[in-house]
Amino acid sequence: MIYLDNSATTKPNPAVLESYRHISEMMFANPSSIHQFGGESEKLLFKAKDQASYLLGVSRGEIIFTSGGTEGNNLAIKGIALKHQKRGKHIITSTIEHPSVYNTCNSLESLGFEITYLPVNEKGEVSTKELKSAIRNDTILISIMHVNNELGTIQPIEEISQIAKKHPKLFLHVDGVQGLGKVPLSLDNSGIDLCTFSGHKIHGLKGTGILYVKNGTTLFPLFHGGNQESGIRSGTENLAGSVSLVKALRLMKEREKKELADLYDIHQNLRKRLEEIDDVKMNTPCQNVAPHIINISIPGLKPEVMIHTLGEKDIFISTKSACSSKQKEESKVLAACGLDEKRTTSALRISLSYDTTKEEISCFLEELKEAIQQLKEIME
Amino acid sequence: MIYLDNSATTKPNPAVLESYRHISEMMFANPSSIHQFGGESEKLLFKAKDQASYLLGVSRGEIIFTSGGTEGNNLAIKGIALKHQKRGKHIITSTIEHPSVYNTCNSLESLGFEITYLPVNEKGEVSTKELKSAIRNDTILISIMHVNNELGTIQPIEEISQIAKKHPKLFLHVDGVQGLGKVPLSLDNSGIDLCTFSGHKIHGLKGTGILYVKNGTTLFPLFHGGNQESGIRSGTENLAGSVSLVKALRLMKEREKKELADLYDIHQNLRKRLEEIDDVKMNTPCQNVAPHIINISIPGLKPEVMIHTLGEKDIFISTKSACSSKQKEESKVLAACGLDEKRTTSALRISLSYDTTKEEISCFLEELKEAIQQLKEIME
Ligand SMILES: Cc1ncc(COP(=O)(O)O)c(C=O)c1O
Ligand SMILES: Cc1ncc(COP(=O)(O)O)c(C=O)c1O
Repeated sequence: MIYLDNSATTKPNPAVLESYRHISEMMFANPSSIHQFGGESEKLLFKAKDQASYLLGVSRGEIIFTSGGTEGNNLAIKGIALKHQKRGKHIITSTIEHPSVYNTCNSLESLGFEITYLPVNEKGEVSTKELKSAIRNDTILISIMHVNNELGTIQPIEEISQIAKKHPKLFLHVDGVQGLGKVPLSLDNSGIDLCTFSGHKIHGLKGTGILYVKNGTTLFPLFHGGNQESGIRSGTENLAGSVSLVKALRLMKEREKKELADLYDIHQNLRKRLEEIDDVKMNTPCQNVAPHIINISIPGLKPEVMIHTLGEKDIFISTKSACSSKQKEESKVLAACGLDEKRTTSALRISLSYDTTKEEISCFLEELKEAIQQLKEIME
Repeated sequence: MIYLDNSATTKPNPAVLESYRHISEMMFANPSSIHQFGGESEKLLFKAKDQASYLLGVSRGEIIFTSGGTEGNNLAIKGIALKHQKRGKHIITSTIEHPSVYNTCNSLESLGFEITYLPVNEKGEVSTKELKSAIRNDTILISIMHVNNELGTIQPIEEISQIAKKHPKLFLHVDGVQGLGKVPLSLDNSGIDLCTFSGHKIHGLKGTGILYVKNGTTLFPLFHGGNQESGIRSGTENLAGSVSLVKALRLMKEREKKELADLYDIHQNLRKRLEEIDDVKMNTPCQNVAPHIINISIPGLKPEVMIHTLGEKDIFISTKSACSSKQKEESKVLAACGLDEKRTTSALRISLSYDTTKEEISCFLEELKEAIQQLKEIME
């Protein structure tokens, strides 16, 4: 199998899965139980938090374990909105956010919130100038993603943070799901108040995630209950999930340190060779992009047909984000970048991991070219 | 180890854990990805839903996979509240609900909702008469648990459903977490609109759960995003979690069928032998109770001391629910039943599973008696 859909989800690292299995079997006590067995579980949970905070360069109390990126984004956005609505009901986000941010902001409109969706340029970048002028007295939250999941574009988070810092009354949330382990992002002292991460995008397990919540940031919880996770996220802790997530994070950070340049090499090489193919239009900008995502269009070719043709050869790529891939044909992200309908309805996303080899890329390119030839003949 | 804290959490069944491991390893594709690998994941997800709906006697579209009981309760209650608030902002619940219901209702007060907390009698039962008179024109939701997690008391859900049915404009939510696999509850055609279940209470894995949402019941989602789970619960599906949960459910239902009478035998025997101990006051009523929970008080003895003393012998019991066990000393549930402070601050919960043996119970009783003797001497 040549798996090039790593932005949708990644293959769990066997060591991560083994750690999950081990903890589930041996440490099944409820960390909230006051007996010794519960105490051992709790100790392990604290240790996992310590490690996570160390790896992310923040403090332990700022780590909230969640069930994934969608929960993290919803908790951050609705949490701020419902908690701080008395201060204002205006939220700023962008037109190219993942549905778990975009639709969440949207849903708040029915509760009386007003949302400004910042446009992006042709590379998919939010303009900080536009952001500045969108901020109002009643703005309580800015939510902008770090790395776009369709294009790989990196947003100017540092500049955005600087702007946010000048408005101490508003909160800044960053959807860090696609960047983790691939594009560095500092949290501590950064001006970022909330940042979402997801386990299954870094070879961890589905159903695991972290929301960074800066000290002093108060949220209306999505889950009320037994006050686990500092009261921000009640519910019996998924200890095995959290321990395994921290392991995935550690392994990912190690690979980032050692293999990031190699991944950019593969990315550049793939990009160059894709651009050499006549029918391929490159959508991912050439600079300021993550190392694992390349988005192309093959105008006139339906993406699902190409995906299935490659799938027959055990090669898996995607179109748009998995979450929205079954919906409308057009990519909203590409449309927001000003691409025409021919491009927005024929997009393909190739997404790599640190496990992707040059041989796999060569094989993929051969099969892609053959498929283009084949499909064009059928269509003519 | 003699583990008698099964209401806090249960030991995962090895077959359940193995199914989780297998699916995580082999079927890691995102079920929303449109390639063939994603399609296989999706098929498996549908199969899991089919099985869950078969086992619960409902239809497939009524099963929503969640991350656990706390999420299910919050999704049901806040989901109804936020979606139907234009119709009314009054909610009825009871004083003995689990914190994930109680505190959730409570939290809605800050959003302008009004909550009626029904009292209970000395057995911990909600009076249907009081329920009837609490229903108002602006009542949109009744949330009552099936089996109480501290006492084991079974609520009169059938009568409550009959009452709810007469008010077709309001919704009925049942927290079914403690009853599942131990106390039968019909969902289909029952008058129940929403019912919460949690995986880790039935030898499944933490981070898994089901919310039953009756066809036609609309909710404001807690997680907006890619519209997974019929749009009610967005987020990349935890396929391995869901498949393993359905396995746990199947195994539990099999044991319920074959071993429920045996479990009640052990329960009765334990009860009788506990009542023979001088210092023990029985809190769990003698009729209409679940087979796995017995609550006692040993007035004058601090529960945490007893729990630790038994813990030294590798015997694990608890006080109150795990979720609230670290908070105030008094059990709110026992206080709501009208017990005096001596009883409410000295409660111990022994909770069984189908794996609990008579030998374990005998051993526990011996150690309990010895501990009472020891601790009394120290205290005198
Ligand atoms: C940018 C981005 N944010 C959020 C998510 C949602 O995360 P999860 O799949 O863990 O719910 C995804 C992936 O689906 C994503 O790519
Ligand atoms: C009655 C009841 N409801 C809800 C819950 C919460 O479920 P979970 O632990 O899966 O969040 C529990 C257990 O903690 C419970 O006993």
